[in-house]
Amino acid sequence: MPVASPSDPTADPALRSWVPVREGSDFPIQNLPYGVFRRGSGDPGCIGVAIGDSILDLGPLAREGLLHDSIPNPTALEAASLEGILGLGRPAWRKLRGRISELLSTANREIRDVPELAERVLVPLDQADMALPVAVRNYVDFYSSFEHASNMGRMFRPDAEPLLPNWRHLPVGYHGRAGTVVVSGTPVVRPRGQTKGEDDPAPSWGPTRMLDIELEVGFLTGAGNRLGAPIPIRAAGDHIFGLVLVNDWSARDIQRWEYQPLGPFLGKSFATSISPWVVTLDALDPYRVAGPAQDPEPLPYLRADAAWAFDIELEVGLSSAAMSERGLPPHVISRTNFRSLYWSMAQQLAHATSNGATAGAGDLFASGTISGSDPSSYGSLLELTWRGTRPLVLPDGSKRAFLEDGDTVVMRGWCGEGHERPRIGFGEVNGTILASPEGPGNASDVGTGIGEGGRRR
Amino acid sequence: MPVASPSDPTADPALRSWVPVREGSDFPIQNLPYGVFRRGSGDPGCIGVAIGDSILDLGPLAREGLLHDSIPNPTALEAASLEGILGLGRPAWRKLRGRISELLSTANREIRDVPELAERVLVPLDQADMALPVAVRNYVDFYSSFEHASNMGRMFRPDAEPLLPNWRHLPVGYHGRAGTVVVSGTPVVRPRGQTKGEDDPAPSWGPTRMLDIELEVGFLTGAGNRLGAPIPIRAAGDHIFGLVLVNDWSARDIQRWEYQPLGPFLGKSFATSISPWVVTLDALDPYRVAGPAQDPEPLPYLRADAAWAFDIELEVGLSSAAMSERGLPPHVISRTNFRSLYWSMAQQLAHATSNGATAGAGDLFASGTISGSDPSSYGSLLELTWRGTRPLVLPDGSKRAFLEDGDTVVMRGWCGEGHERPRIGFGEVNGTILASPEGPGNASDVGTGIGEGGRRR
Repeated sequence: MPVASPSDPTADPALRSWVPVREGSDFPIQNLPYGVFRRGSGDPGCIGVAIGDSILDLGPLAREGLLHDSIPNPTALEAASLEGILGLGRPAWRKLRGRISELLSTANREIRDVPELAERVLVPLDQADMALPVAVRNYVDFYSSFEHASNMGRMFRPDAEPLLPNWRHLPVGYHGRAGTVVVSGTPVVRPRGQTKGEDDPAPSWGPTRMLDIELEVGFLTGAGNRLGAPIPIRAAGDHIFGLVLVNDWSARDIQRWEYQPLGPFLGKSFATSISPWVVTLDALDPYRVAGPAQDPEPLPYLRADAAWAFDIELEVGLSSAAMSERGLPPHVISRTNFRSLYWSMAQQLAHATSNGATAGAGDLFASGTISGSDPSSYGSLLELTWRGTRPLVLPDGSKRAFLEDGDTVVMRGWCGEGHERPRIGFGEVNGTILASPEGPGNASDVGTGIGEGGRRR
Repeated sequence: MPVASPSDPTADPALRSWVPVREGSDFPIQNLPYGVFRRGSGDPGCIGVAIGDSILDLGPLAREGLLHDSIPNPTALEAASLEGILGLGRPAWRKLRGRISELLSTANREIRDVPELAERVLVPLDQADMALPVAVRNYVDFYSSFEHASNMGRMFRPDAEPLLPNWRHLPVGYHGRAGTVVVSGTPVVRPRGQTKGEDDPAPSWGPTRMLDIELEVGFLTGAGNRLGAPIPIRAAGDHIFGLVLVNDWSARDIQRWEYQPLGPFLGKSFATSISPWVVTLDALDPYRVAGPAQDPEPLPYLRADAAWAFDIELEVGLSSAAMSERGLPPHVISRTNFRSLYWSMAQQLAHATSNGATAGAGDLFASGTISGSDPSSYGSLLELTWRGTRPLVLPDGSKRAFLEDGDTVVMRGWCGEGHERPRIGFGEVNGTILASPEGPGNASDVGTGIGEGGRRR
């Protein structure tokens, strides 16, 4: 049940851009995701919108006055962060989006017919380095997939109800480390930490041996509320700017030893990767669908009067170092869909601010691992290999219970595959695992001779 | 065992300032804490250093060139945040501190003998509004008091070992909400949330009935490390700028229902208050003492080669609305000392970055509730009233299990009471509880008529 206004010109499936857009591109004119890109290592960063295989650079357009009536603070478009856009709120977001759609549509000649300008403001995607779209100020991670939470319960509490008593009453969540949210492509150094096997007399120290992924979708908020004044669920759409893919890397052995009673800490805080393009809620509106039934009915502050699930296909690929060297594509290890999430983004935001906490520009809220009901749709290696008991076999013949050094994980998401509607894609979030260094600041550096000998057997 | 260099002129107990400093002031010339203050509601904020009953405004001093050779980025002193100072690291921090000490000492005439300048750069403390010293980017809260963790275990798991197995091996911690860290004096709206009594068939919604405090001390880091390169414990002092008092407000009934399995979330995220003056590690150095013995010996990455406890006296006062109206001083409900903390700040920082996570300017790390061994030295109402079973009696005759609307909590900290050394004080962190509003965005606003009727019985 799409609730997009049929008169919204930015969603018209017949709309075309004068910028070439390949068949199957993630970025047709109906998408227009925002990101921050750099032309080279010295570039502080520019705000751009993806269109086909290009980026439209908004900074020069603002300086030329072409966006002057479309945003109250045009200088915000010359920053190296979406923060100034995020703070505006939905009416302003829609106005800016409408104008960018207009400038890029075949009927418009304001850029298209000025070759000097077009050359200046269109940057080939493959010549840009993507940066974090915004410095993340707060990072909340939920636990909103019924299947994931149930799988975790089955694995770790086999003799009890898989779900804890609170799970069906509220979207369980916690705070992750905002400062280690990184953009896709950032290498992930295998973390070291304390681990303790059940039969070990004492913990030991070394690189994690259970390095995992978590397939998630996150949303970035803007607008924002005052401290002490919750965002009611019916207003959630006014505050949610757009969505990104999230890989919440996890060291399961570190997490298992540390997490009682205050939750995950170092098992997660070494890195969380997000995709660079923020797909707006407006672009996703045609793919809005009803979410799963909730039983029991949630408390009133968690009851939405609109559909708040989104039909987003998700896929996880894994490449070993050998596969990457041979140029093989990532091996797909999971396929699932965001629409199965039990707790919606609107419920998550209403819950997270229900105590009066603020949410605003720079806040990232992630879904938690998204797992479907079929084992091929699980969103973590922990589930896909069932704690390592059913290793995956890669095309190069190697097996994986958890990630090895040199492995690259690629997550993709899109709406519209096989539909009559335009494909609204997220691009990807990827990361490659680097070995734990033995150098300064690490185990061998504390002056007491631990190192390989200090590792767990 | 103080490890301050005896030749450090800023620590000389005989040093005096030409700015008047009352006997017993928290802010003699040996302290020189940094903060951000405003002269009025339109003022974006200035960086200042407290001296006696005054603030030395660093912005004009920088513009006059008086700090020109003392900081590589003098414009950082004209910001409304300590961020630019925090990023510099210890050698630069010491240099700036040395110059400020010099300018304020009786022997120096550069400000003292220029009345126009002195008037411009000295602001009476009582004419300034204090702001957050820095926008907090990441907030980690530890659980490092042996007595507090033991008390929690005794209350919530009476038949088991009070401490969980990991507690003596690592400083247990988790991430709190950075965006709701507020400065002392910010009112705290009583949060609403889901709670469920053990015998209730389902959770209900309403204002917390178990609003509590947590007496903590936090540290702000600067300098910082690269992602993937831990800060070794011997380098912790290069990264810790200074300390603040922290009141980590907690709604125990919300926390109890939500916290499994991912830790505290809304029971804490509505507000965390910090004191406005950041007392530098250099000022505290004369009060550096050996911490408690640790058994078992921690893993090598947690072994420090220096003393890392600090002899800081701590006190919590509570005023009812009636007491405040009658001008009565806060009733002291707890007295304890920071030196009893089991896990040191150096251990906390080394642990928090041991997985390669970054820490830098804008990061706040808090100790967790500081409780001593005597019941009068507990750092939370939960412990002081033993889950409400032993209510406190205030001077106005009223009783307290947990906080009531209109209550004001004041926490103070200082070094040196009764010693021959100068008093190094923190000032205070205070907050007053406001009733949960029934207005927009709250329970009565979700369009389904819950409100008082939706509260727990």
